[in-house]
Amino acid sequence: MNIVEFFQHRAGTWTSTRTSHHLIIKKAESGTSEIHLEMLSVQDPQVIELCEQHGFNPEQALCAAKVTWNGSMEWDNKDTVGEGNHKGFTIFVPIADGDDIQQGHLLRHQGYAEKAPVVGRYVMSSDDVLSLITEYGTVYSEEKFWFPRPNLCLRAGITVGMSNVTSFCTEIRKVPPKSENTETARTATGAST
Amino acid sequence: MNIVEFFQHRAGTWTSTRTSHHLIIKKAESGTSEIHLEMLSVQDPQVIELCEQHGFNPEQALCAAKVTWNGSMEWDNKDTVGEGNHKGFTIFVPIADGDDIQQGHLLRHQGYAEKAPVVGRYVMSSDDVLSLITEYGTVYSEEKFWFPRPNLCLRAGITVGMSNVTSFCTEIRKVPPKSENTETARTATGAST
Repeated sequence: MNIVEFFQHRAGTWTSTRTSHHLIIKKAESGTSEIHLEMLSVQDPQVIELCEQHGFNPEQALCAAKVTWNGSMEWDNKDTVGEGNHKGFTIFVPIADGDDIQQGHLLRHQGYAEKAPVVGRYVMSSDDVLSLITEYGTVYSEEKFWFPRPNLCLRAGITVGMSNVTSFCTEIRKVPPKSENTETARTATGAST
Repeated sequence: MNIVEFFQHRAGTWTSTRTSHHLIIKKAESGTSEIHLEMLSVQDPQVIELCEQHGFNPEQALCAAKVTWNGSMEWDNKDTVGEGNHKGFTIFVPIADGDDIQQGHLLRHQGYAEKAPVVGRYVMSSDDVLSLITEYGTVYSEEKFWFPRPNLCLRAGITVGMSNVTSFCTEIRKVPPKSENTETARTATGAST
């Protein structure tokens, strides 16, 4: 599985159960959310703008995905939860390291814990595990994603910085993606083969 | 990292925080345990016996590790927890598929959810993630282990069968291993290089 196939497989709507292990206070906290991923065209103006913000040629975008989520965690301040205080969206755009599409930069717009555009790294392993590594300010995050079953995605990783937390999500697909637009991947790079 | 180096790195005593996501009832359950791993000599009689039980030549054992644990989960019957009802030990012995030590059989004695000897599979990926796949009776389990930091091990996976559960452990090393006995690994196979 390459990075484009990984995002394509991840398309659809997922119910996510998340648990965080807070390492300093040694407590576990759980929550749930709904996550939706749709592929965007690499010609989408938001994708072109994101590439240009980071100084990449938009032609280098292997594919693009928009992820939206809405959820809550046990320790949320219930007074502010009204519209879901874990709600947001991100656009992800992978850009390969030269000809090796198994690793590269991952451009990201409007993340969960930050609002400025962020460049992370992605690595696809030999056993189809996607690792995402992101640094923003003093926060470092490293998360692995894999599919033990076609409609089950597991995610686990660490966030180090303001607080030290490990987290785990069990995500079950409840709605399959709309029929794929094959134009979403840049096939000229061989990325989807 | 190869499978022998992985086990060697895992030696020591770890504090483990475990969370299980019960997929059918959609509930998370947490618990804690202490896990200790020590390398055994491949000449240890228990290791030789385990190989012979499974019809393998003991000379094929790449290394051997004994894991003991003691813990409890939230939903445990408190009346029976006295001595810790998640307590036990396992001996692991990896046997490579021919010359490829990155994957092979994993012999196992006295597991957590079963008492009969079990043969599973191990795979080391390109990014140093160890996957263990075990089938015993109608139960199938698949778990990934990796070290985001030298003294931090994350484990996550699924168990399918009697119940469908995903689980996640954050494990922090609290006691380093005793000085290594270099005789524990079968260096003649090149496994520890």
